Amino acid sequence: MAIAPHQAQEFMTNSELLLKLLLQLTVILSTCKLVSYLGKRYLGQTDVVGEMLAGIMLGPSLFGMMAPNFQQWLFPKAPILTGEIVFPNPSMSILYALSQVGLMIYMFLVGLDLNMDLLKNRAKSAGIVSIAGIIVPFGLGAIAAFGLHGQDLFSQNVTPWAAALYMGASLSITAFPMLARILQERGLIKTKLGTLVLAAGSLDDAIAWCLLALVLASIKSSMNVAIIAIGGTLAYVLFMWFFGQRILRIFSYWTRRDGEVTMQTLTFVFIIMMICAYYTDFVGVHAIFGAFVLGIVMPRGHFAESVHRHLEYLTTSLLVPIFFVFSGLNTQLGLLNSPRLWAIALLIILIAVMGKGLACTLAAKWSGENWRNSMTVGALMNTRGMMELIILNIGLEQGLITPTLFTIMVIMAIVTTVMCSPLVNWLVRDNQT
Amino acid sequence: MAIAPHQAQEFMTNSELLLKLLLQLTVILSTCKLVSYLGKRYLGQTDVVGEMLAGIMLGPSLFGMMAPNFQQWLFPKAPILTGEIVFPNPSMSILYALSQVGLMIYMFLVGLDLNMDLLKNRAKSAGIVSIAGIIVPFGLGAIAAFGLHGQDLFSQNVTPWAAALYMGASLSITAFPMLARILQERGLIKTKLGTLVLAAGSLDDAIAWCLLALVLASIKSSMNVAIIAIGGTLAYVLFMWFFGQRILRIFSYWTRRDGEVTMQTLTFVFIIMMICAYYTDFVGVHAIFGAFVLGIVMPRGHFAESVHRHLEYLTTSLLVPIFFVFSGLNTQLGLLNSPRLWAIALLIILIAVMGKGLACTLAAKWSGENWRNSMTVGALMNTRGMMELIILNIGLEQGLITPTLFTIMVIMAIVTTVMCSPLVNWLVRDNQT
Repeated sequence: MAIAPHQAQEFMTNSELLLKLLLQLTVILSTCKLVSYLGKRYLGQTDVVGEMLAGIMLGPSLFGMMAPNFQQWLFPKAPILTGEIVFPNPSMSILYALSQVGLMIYMFLVGLDLNMDLLKNRAKSAGIVSIAGIIVPFGLGAIAAFGLHGQDLFSQNVTPWAAALYMGASLSITAFPMLARILQERGLIKTKLGTLVLAAGSLDDAIAWCLLALVLASIKSSMNVAIIAIGGTLAYVLFMWFFGQRILRIFSYWTRRDGEVTMQTLTFVFIIMMICAYYTDFVGVHAIFGAFVLGIVMPRGHFAESVHRHLEYLTTSLLVPIFFVFSGLNTQLGLLNSPRLWAIALLIILIAVMGKGLACTLAAKWSGENWRNSMTVGALMNTRGMMELIILNIGLEQGLITPTLFTIMVIMAIVTTVMCSPLVNWLVRDNQT
Repeated sequence: MAIAPHQAQEFMTNSELLLKLLLQLTVILSTCKLVSYLGKRYLGQTDVVGEMLAGIMLGPSLFGMMAPNFQQWLFPKAPILTGEIVFPNPSMSILYALSQVGLMIYMFLVGLDLNMDLLKNRAKSAGIVSIAGIIVPFGLGAIAAFGLHGQDLFSQNVTPWAAALYMGASLSITAFPMLARILQERGLIKTKLGTLVLAAGSLDDAIAWCLLALVLASIKSSMNVAIIAIGGTLAYVLFMWFFGQRILRIFSYWTRRDGEVTMQTLTFVFIIMMICAYYTDFVGVHAIFGAFVLGIVMPRGHFAESVHRHLEYLTTSLLVPIFFVFSGLNTQLGLLNSPRLWAIALLIILIAVMGKGLACTLAAKWSGENWRNSMTVGALMNTRGMMELIILNIGLEQGLITPTLFTIMVIMAIVTTVMCSPLVNWLVRDNQT
């Protein structure tokens, strides 16, 4: 059995792995903070945009081009081959685990932030915007998928229907957390406009994630496995909605009794979150879907706010940047090496903006808003942000899409996210004069 | 190249590793919380005692005896062998990395809590107690090490001097964080007694960790490597004390300017922490020593309290329990299979209690306290808690001590920690009547 020297050296002890992890985290955090600082200071962008770009810069598209050996050493993406056995590089397995735990907590917090009660108050207009924001991008995405299927953008064994479902779901995504942050920053979160967007965005994200769960379940190799996945997920959602919600009220009670969220309480939350994530992953849907649904059915109020405060820093500042790097390692701008592919990229961006931004603008106008407010709704609903990257990485991991389509969709996510802040700034400033 | 089936199946994909991690964390957190809840409710013990015991229960001493296959599957300690290459199990590498990051932040927070100003106010008595709490256990430990050397308790290549230095340092440890928590719970933290114990405990821990750094530096294979380790560490400590302290005041300034510790600030703290940890590990001393020293020289006040609040939950509730499990996996009660070894264990416990507890009691009495206060000082200084486990795991990892001595020392750590709460309760209750 022959092992090339550079492969043999990858067999590191735990201490060496730790040392490398410290270095990796230092590079990741420094780059993310630097780029997002520059983007915020000079371009008025949100942190997310900077961190998305930082991830791509640390991948093969920039760092990997400038210093391929150092990049390969720091983020050794290639699996290790020894004899007949192939397994992931342990150093990257550690980073991967950290990033996934980060996403799990992140999606739990997104679920926790969704406020379904908003829907009741603004049922009509939120319903119209939300339906437009699902149906139109879903339809356009599905049509595009049928057109693009067989062009090296989807994996060989993916049926046109699965491709259509996946593209539809991934174009229907709204970056709910980013939208909430922008509304907060602009002081719009409690306004009529703010609640409308929040309600529509929540509903769209909940639906898009359920669609994704459906796609993941339906691409199983055998009918039996697919039935377990769909049945198991449905049973989970129904159980959480009808019983889980009631049982979990104990957390609200504990918080009132103790006056605050104690460490014990938080640890319980974490244990339940891991069980939910484990269950949904085990039946065949992604782990973070379990955490997301758990977040939705958790009690609201003081408990939720407090949990959010406790977990936010860990997630957004430390763990999520690791995810951006993974996403960036998968993004290979070099793959877009033909005018045809760039044309497809342009088409996808157009579809995304038309499907979500324009459709939501028109829907808001139709439901009675004025043009400016309607356009603000459209601009906000159109951001994809990190939520899109999550769904794309799942699609790539599960072998639904190829690295080429992945890269195209990442560009779309960045373009729609970059558009949002300046547009909203411009619309809102005009509004106030 | 032949690979046994149970070895081949260890080559897991990243998703499988993540799924296993979720299960491992669920088991670890549930067990730690359950045992520490029972210990607190029925035996009046602190959380740490329960978590120390939970770790041992999940190791070969209980879980491994009751369900060896399941335990080996959940916590696969054995390294993977493929052909001529041996490397750690990736699943355990992930847990290891998490536990070490946890320890790093934990020791940073311990450093941040040390208040050297206390020494100025109670210089005389704190100095006497602190010196007694170092010299006596260090001397007794060193004598014991000379006596026990060559008895299969220290590794073959460890010189008697290194063994003596290590035993001395590890017997001088005080569980400073636990001591602070007990004083807080009993409302003693602001009293004369409280400041005396805190000051003496801080000083002892700072000295013991420097001694450990010295041991680690001195056991290097060659003189050159030892000089780099000692010189590099000394340079680091001096730099941090004289310059770092001044530079790091910027954090205090930022906190005042922003009114609170922002995520940006926290991320900077984290980046610097990782660089410090990387540096000390790189020159040849353990990573957590770098984080500990950084904690000591960080600015105090609002900044420190806020950082503490932000990082405490993540560390003590989520990451530190993983460390207890690692420690428990290394603890093999089955190794103590002869009356001679149990006699040695008893001797070590006796030395530990005499050296630290009795010596500090007498020193406090001599410095002018009454008997009850002096005994409280002794009981508090005598707890080893988690700090001892950290130093023991480093000793085992670095090949200083054998698993047998490790197990004996863990028993000592648990006994001295279990003693503390009831003793202090009894002494303090008497005090108030």
